[in-house]
Amino acid sequence: MASSLKRLLIGKPLATERQQQERLGRRTALAVFSADALSSVSYATEAILTVLILGGALALGFSLPIGFAVAFLLVMVGLSYRQTIRAYPQGGGAYIVSRENLGEMPGLVAAGALMIDYVLTVAVSISAGVAAITSLMSSWGYPEIRGATVPLALLFIAVVTLINLRGTKESGILFAVPTYAFIIGIMGLIGYALIHDSIVGADPVVHAIPPDLPPEQVLGLWLLLRAFAAGCIALTGIEAISDGVQAFRPPEAKNAATTMTAMVILLVTMFLGITYLAYLHEAMPNPNTQETIISQVARTVFGVGPAYTFVQVATALILIIAANTAYADFPRLASFLSRDRFLPRQFASRGDRLVFSNGILVLGISSALLVVIFQANAIILLPLYAIGVFTSFTLSQTGMVRRYLRLQPEGWQRGLLISGIGALLTATVVLVLATTKFVHGAWAVMVLIPLMVLGFKTIQGHYLRVAEQLSLTTAARPRPVRRITAIVLVSGIHKGTLPALELAKSLSPDNVTAVYVNLDPEQGERVRARWHEWGCDVPLVILDSPYRSLITPLLKYVDEIEGRYRDDHMLIVLPEFIPSRWWQHLLHNQTGILLRTALMFRKGKTVISVPYKLER
Amino acid sequence: MASSLKRLLIGKPLATERQQQERLGRRTALAVFSADALSSVSYATEAILTVLILGGALALGFSLPIGFAVAFLLVMVGLSYRQTIRAYPQGGGAYIVSRENLGEMPGLVAAGALMIDYVLTVAVSISAGVAAITSLMSSWGYPEIRGATVPLALLFIAVVTLINLRGTKESGILFAVPTYAFIIGIMGLIGYALIHDSIVGADPVVHAIPPDLPPEQVLGLWLLLRAFAAGCIALTGIEAISDGVQAFRPPEAKNAATTMTAMVILLVTMFLGITYLAYLHEAMPNPNTQETIISQVARTVFGVGPAYTFVQVATALILIIAANTAYADFPRLASFLSRDRFLPRQFASRGDRLVFSNGILVLGISSALLVVIFQANAIILLPLYAIGVFTSFTLSQTGMVRRYLRLQPEGWQRGLLISGIGALLTATVVLVLATTKFVHGAWAVMVLIPLMVLGFKTIQGHYLRVAEQLSLTTAARPRPVRRITAIVLVSGIHKGTLPALELAKSLSPDNVTAVYVNLDPEQGERVRARWHEWGCDVPLVILDSPYRSLITPLLKYVDEIEGRYRDDHMLIVLPEFIPSRWWQHLLHNQTGILLRTALMFRKGKTVISVPYKLER
Repeated sequence: MASSLKRLLIGKPLATERQQQERLGRRTALAVFSADALSSVSYATEAILTVLILGGALALGFSLPIGFAVAFLLVMVGLSYRQTIRAYPQGGGAYIVSRENLGEMPGLVAAGALMIDYVLTVAVSISAGVAAITSLMSSWGYPEIRGATVPLALLFIAVVTLINLRGTKESGILFAVPTYAFIIGIMGLIGYALIHDSIVGADPVVHAIPPDLPPEQVLGLWLLLRAFAAGCIALTGIEAISDGVQAFRPPEAKNAATTMTAMVILLVTMFLGITYLAYLHEAMPNPNTQETIISQVARTVFGVGPAYTFVQVATALILIIAANTAYADFPRLASFLSRDRFLPRQFASRGDRLVFSNGILVLGISSALLVVIFQANAIILLPLYAIGVFTSFTLSQTGMVRRYLRLQPEGWQRGLLISGIGALLTATVVLVLATTKFVHGAWAVMVLIPLMVLGFKTIQGHYLRVAEQLSLTTAARPRPVRRITAIVLVSGIHKGTLPALELAKSLSPDNVTAVYVNLDPEQGERVRARWHEWGCDVPLVILDSPYRSLITPLLKYVDEIEGRYRDDHMLIVLPEFIPSRWWQHLLHNQTGILLRTALMFRKGKTVISVPYKLER
Repeated sequence: MASSLKRLLIGKPLATERQQQERLGRRTALAVFSADALSSVSYATEAILTVLILGGALALGFSLPIGFAVAFLLVMVGLSYRQTIRAYPQGGGAYIVSRENLGEMPGLVAAGALMIDYVLTVAVSISAGVAAITSLMSSWGYPEIRGATVPLALLFIAVVTLINLRGTKESGILFAVPTYAFIIGIMGLIGYALIHDSIVGADPVVHAIPPDLPPEQVLGLWLLLRAFAAGCIALTGIEAISDGVQAFRPPEAKNAATTMTAMVILLVTMFLGITYLAYLHEAMPNPNTQETIISQVARTVFGVGPAYTFVQVATALILIIAANTAYADFPRLASFLSRDRFLPRQFASRGDRLVFSNGILVLGISSALLVVIFQANAIILLPLYAIGVFTSFTLSQTGMVRRYLRLQPEGWQRGLLISGIGALLTATVVLVLATTKFVHGAWAVMVLIPLMVLGFKTIQGHYLRVAEQLSLTTAARPRPVRRITAIVLVSGIHKGTLPALELAKSLSPDNVTAVYVNLDPEQGERVRARWHEWGCDVPLVILDSPYRSLITPLLKYVDEIEGRYRDDHMLIVLPEFIPSRWWQHLLHNQTGILLRTALMFRKGKTVISVPYKLER
């Protein structure tokens, strides 16, 4: 039944040979790989304003200089990643680049940071997508929808997880429509607003319930730094193209680099445009209505109508698509780590549908947990998000610096300069993030990354020790054929016992003993009485058990027999009857399992389970 | 580690021969068996007043006639149970009496009702005990304690459960002190108050926060019936002596009957006394302070001081002792049902400490759940409680009626009259309870009892079918020694594979095949290359798996081989390496378990697990 449900939800198994890589043109690739990066336009401005408003309404004007600083960072990191693309046409994620150029430890730190990131990408994107929908529905006059934020977010996560378990090929259309709709929506909004406002002037946003503004304060450097750190969220997802160079049509690296440039230009334009419009129309975060900044701006510029609806729906869609990219990246990274023995090997095997099912499931469950804990509030999740992203940026670019110094390819000085500046800038951002956002949640990531690295190393240590112990280099030659000593454990004399006795007799005609543990004297006498007729001429030993334990006297007896026939193979035969339905297992003492655990796992004995299947 | 924790909490195993029955004198027996019944004095009056107050403050005066009606019922049921004691000196619980005289179905209904009862006894008694404590602490000026009601109740349940798992013998002192303290406290309270009030007059209770009284209403018959039904809770526990006649010193039945009489006299006196004092001092349920009626009366009569504290502490203690009696009754009833195959057999076996551990655990967990769901509010739990108790009373007494008619012992006419009246009265109460308390929770019990009976019958059906299938009457004679065909499943060639190959070779020197499922072509080639050196001359078969499933191709191959060697014993040999620590299991594919499940449970094949223990 569980199996048919699985078939219904994720489909029939796919043959291994059907595994292949779709190659993407530049336009489709832009849609596939930039969804994550572009979608951050929908919350980056809001993240800046959420910090600035703590300094009072006037402080909101600082969003423009901060926006320019973030845009500068964006361009520099974009340039640096163009180089990674050229250097790693096979795909250069932060884990691979750091591991190869900086060593195992930095690689593992990058991997830990990335895994945390991917989980947060899903949680943040889905939460922001739900916020776009609830803002839209509130504008239509249904503010009650905000009560369903968490269930909606969980529903989206479940759907995205299922789609990925089915392993739908990343079809161009699926990504192209929302991404280009979002680009058109935001660009159209910016263009229309610039013209409209210059003719009739910019109306301020009208709030259904106005936000409670804090009193004006002297604006400190600290608040500005915090606002900048918050805005750095605009950079998330920018590394996606460098991970997936192999998905481009040839020449892969060149096409990928060109796409990267297009993406950065779009991202900078849209981010600065929205930030400017928010400033012009006096948009501000409003905890009372939970309306997003994009919704405030679009509603004020377009009025509540089709154009506004288009922007909101496109925003929600691109955010869900952005979450979907993490579903490609996380399981792939987990499979790399698993192959390098840093994660359980279950992450390296492809499931029925040729996808890394375990990675997908772990990602879905972890992000669902985050959504529940943080009540699907993207703005609260953001401080956790950025520090992992920038840690991996820094490690990846530092890796590129080391690479240029080591290999000194043609034009390495220019490359070194760009990657060096990129690494320095992002390292500075990590410091700013770690200090300004420490109390807002960054501490949790800073604790989690070392714990994950420790986990990676522990797992690897275990696998290495197992490999060493299993290695045949010190193995003795297989021994010649030996005699078999068998012990049959009987719980009574009935049809379930007979197959085990017959088999034991066949295995070792001369050296079988049946053992019965005397828990209930009456039953013991009955077994002894009927043994003559049904015991297959096997001698019966009855063990006393003063403490009513089945296992203790058996283990003692098994040890004794083993001492006696030290040169034989010793087999312990367990008759087990198998109920026909799962719930019926609960109605029988699970002594078979207990015995096997004690004999095999604790004592390392060889156990034979002889089943007797019940029909009804 | 889990095992040492268990030792610490419940102690060392006890030998079976230490099982014995302590015989009790009448005074100790009164303490042991009447704790449950007498403790209901602490909430019965309150249950009546909680209903009456819905009719306004004046309606509280009706508590006296209702109290007398309940007292009459108490005496009649007490007389009837004296007869059960004489008829069943071996112990006549409702399950046994109904089953023997009325048949299986009524027996099972009684058993279901009793099991629900015992769970409720624990939940109600512990909750009421906690209420006594919080009332006391509030009077001392710590009303904050009421916030900890649920954790306190859970703590008490955990302690009582642990004590019972340890299997402390029901020591006389343990029960005698709280029970006699409670009798002295309540009797002293009643005596002192009667004298004091007749000299200086009765002061009304002063409330820290007065209760919000509902408006006066015309008092309907319905409300009076409901109040009477609520008061019937005073009868709970009255049957305890009839269950445990064997615990009395000889002459058992006579001593038990005398003790029964003493208990009923005490119970009637205390219940009527408290009800009268509550009326005299205008005590009433107060949701604002959650103070119990006993606490209100005792505080007003004695003032907040040592005498009041004594009453409260004695009340709390007797209630906890009352919960403890369910810990003797529930596991015993479950073991009877289990022996009659109506419950899983796990309930019939005694644990390390000679107690029915599984029954104790189920009781503890179920009552803890109830306490959490009902927030440790005894008054809300009461409507659920009474209907089960009276159902078992009715069945038990109807059983006695049938018995008198069937056996016609000496003086049967008198017995028939008493039991008949008892059965009629309690049956009427069941009807009253079912109608008046239906919406207050009685419906849940009325749904649960048939479900439990259905469960009992389903379980019995399964056991009977198993017994029939295992019966040797239709069994074929054991067959002579047969040849062995062995298949060794290898996941690679390493030290963990060798013991399995060696063993298979010894089992069947001529007819062994090794099977490898080709999930990873590279690894497959390595196995083939090294097979010559390490394969023990066993032929190797490599199976393709286009859908990356380990199990499907194996099952197909196993079926094929079985078809070929139909007359042999077929053995499937699984090498399993055993990690040295439990968490390391998570790092390995659990293919061993999956394979065993598929081969043994689905296909009914004989499986040999050959362990290779890892050291580190």
